Amino acid sequence: MSGKGSAPRGLFLSFEGIDGSGKSTQARMLADRLRDQGHDVVLTREPGGSPGAEEIRALVLQGDPDRWSAETEILLFTAARRDHLERTIRPALDRGAVVICDRFADSTRMYQGMSRGDLRKTVDDLHDLMIGVEPDLTLLIDMDPDRGLARAKSRQTIEERFEDFGAALQHKMRAGFLGLAGEFPGRYRIVDGDDTPENVADRVADVVAGHLPAIAG
Amino acid sequence: MSGKGSAPRGLFLSFEGIDGSGKSTQARMLADRLRDQGHDVVLTREPGGSPGAEEIRALVLQGDPDRWSAETEILLFTAARRDHLERTIRPALDRGAVVICDRFADSTRMYQGMSRGDLRKTVDDLHDLMIGVEPDLTLLIDMDPDRGLARAKSRQTIEERFEDFGAALQHKMRAGFLGLAGEFPGRYRIVDGDDTPENVADRVADVVAGHLPAIAG
Ligand SMILES: Nc1ncnc2c1ncn2[C@@H]1O[C@H](COP(=O)(O)OP(=O)(O)O)[C@@H](O)[C@H]1O
Ligand SMILES: Nc1ncnc2c1ncn2[C@@H]1O[C@H](COP(=O)(O)OP(=O)(O)O)[C@@H](O)[C@H]1O
Ligand SMILES: [Mg+2]
Ligand SMILES: [Mg+2]
Repeated sequence: MSGKGSAPRGLFLSFEGIDGSGKSTQARMLADRLRDQGHDVVLTREPGGSPGAEEIRALVLQGDPDRWSAETEILLFTAARRDHLERTIRPALDRGAVVICDRFADSTRMYQGMSRGDLRKTVDDLHDLMIGVEPDLTLLIDMDPDRGLARAKSRQTIEERFEDFGAALQHKMRAGFLGLAGEFPGRYRIVDGDDTPENVADRVADVVAGHLPAIAG
Repeated sequence: MSGKGSAPRGLFLSFEGIDGSGKSTQARMLADRLRDQGHDVVLTREPGGSPGAEEIRALVLQGDPDRWSAETEILLFTAARRDHLERTIRPALDRGAVVICDRFADSTRMYQGMSRGDLRKTVDDLHDLMIGVEPDLTLLIDMDPDRGLARAKSRQTIEERFEDFGAALQHKMRAGFLGLAGEFPGRYRIVDGDDTPENVADRVADVVAGHLPAIAG
């Protein structure tokens, strides 16, 4: 984990990518694989990831899509992230665990920055002020936007709000995530997600291999 | 209202002061008096003041006092304030109304800044980034802290969390609010609250008199 504070001993990984790219699937598969190897793994997600943050998530995602302005939404997501960081991520890293986070701040940079381009600076300023931490590695599961959309549509979920964008937006999202990879080359690793889950999981494991903390015991 | 954006035509008033000083009483009395004079008045309060902000208020104030860190709490209050500003305060000012707000950002400066002195800068940075607006006038109802405490204790409320501080903290709070009045002399007016409600209301009305918008007719 990069950012302020004393150097933690664990490893902070995030998965990012367009809807249907396989973030949640790959996060789970990596967690299983690392646990089998004996690692202490915390699999978590955003928005949410701690009891308080899940309550804030519910407040943001339920109800009328217009109930919050983009700015209020960014504040609520940042509040949830702060809670998640304090209650779940930081304690796990401090004890040497591998934290695997299904989305992190880059999703806010993308989705809120995308819905209103002028908000990207606000998102960044708020992040610097209240979060100040980035993952050690961000795995961008990259794939064809139309195929990703088809996958996402075949899935059932009650929180469709941020996922009902259509093909044009999926293409914009892919370009946006590749843009973030260009902005943060130090931590970004692009993984081709257009393959069987097992083959993608092998690629993810290869990327992570050199970065894992020693196994306790 | 001072801050960014086009000049609104209404008047933005806030009441601040220690617990039991009579903020809510005076806000109500002033609203009644101005309505009797024919003014368009919006009486509101923080935290809360809009449907979304009231939901955030409930999330912050209910439950275990330790459920949120000071930082997360400041983010949640700022989210609530942003919603309150967008949905209640700004539309009212834009149509020329008098907005009377029972507490505003100065209460966050005081309570969160007081619980952890190092947070005052965070509160201010967050305010500048996401709110950027101050009342035209802030009426500080000033009074003896022990008498205020006695009044507050005689009142029944379910949200005691921020009010169960004891005498020492009431004294600190009074000093803190007087300090804020010194920081923002342009908009602060100190009103002696140690008198009958009617006499205090007369003083408040005198302070406000020269600032009222024209009555629409
Ligand atoms: N490599 C893959 N090949 C085919 N289908 C996949 C693959 N990875 C995930 N899926 C399926 O596609 C859908 C979206 O996957 P998910 O992991 O939920 O993506 P995301 O979290 O990025 O939105 C799910 O139904 C999942 O089972
Ligand atoms: N001028 C006053 N003299 C005596 N009691 C008062 C006066 N103003 C308010 N009170 C009473 O004191 C208590 C606290 O007043 P309130 O307006 O709720 O204060 P605050 O909102 O500042 O905490 C209430 O029970 C109220 O009826
Ligand atoms: Mg997912
Ligand atoms: Mg009150």
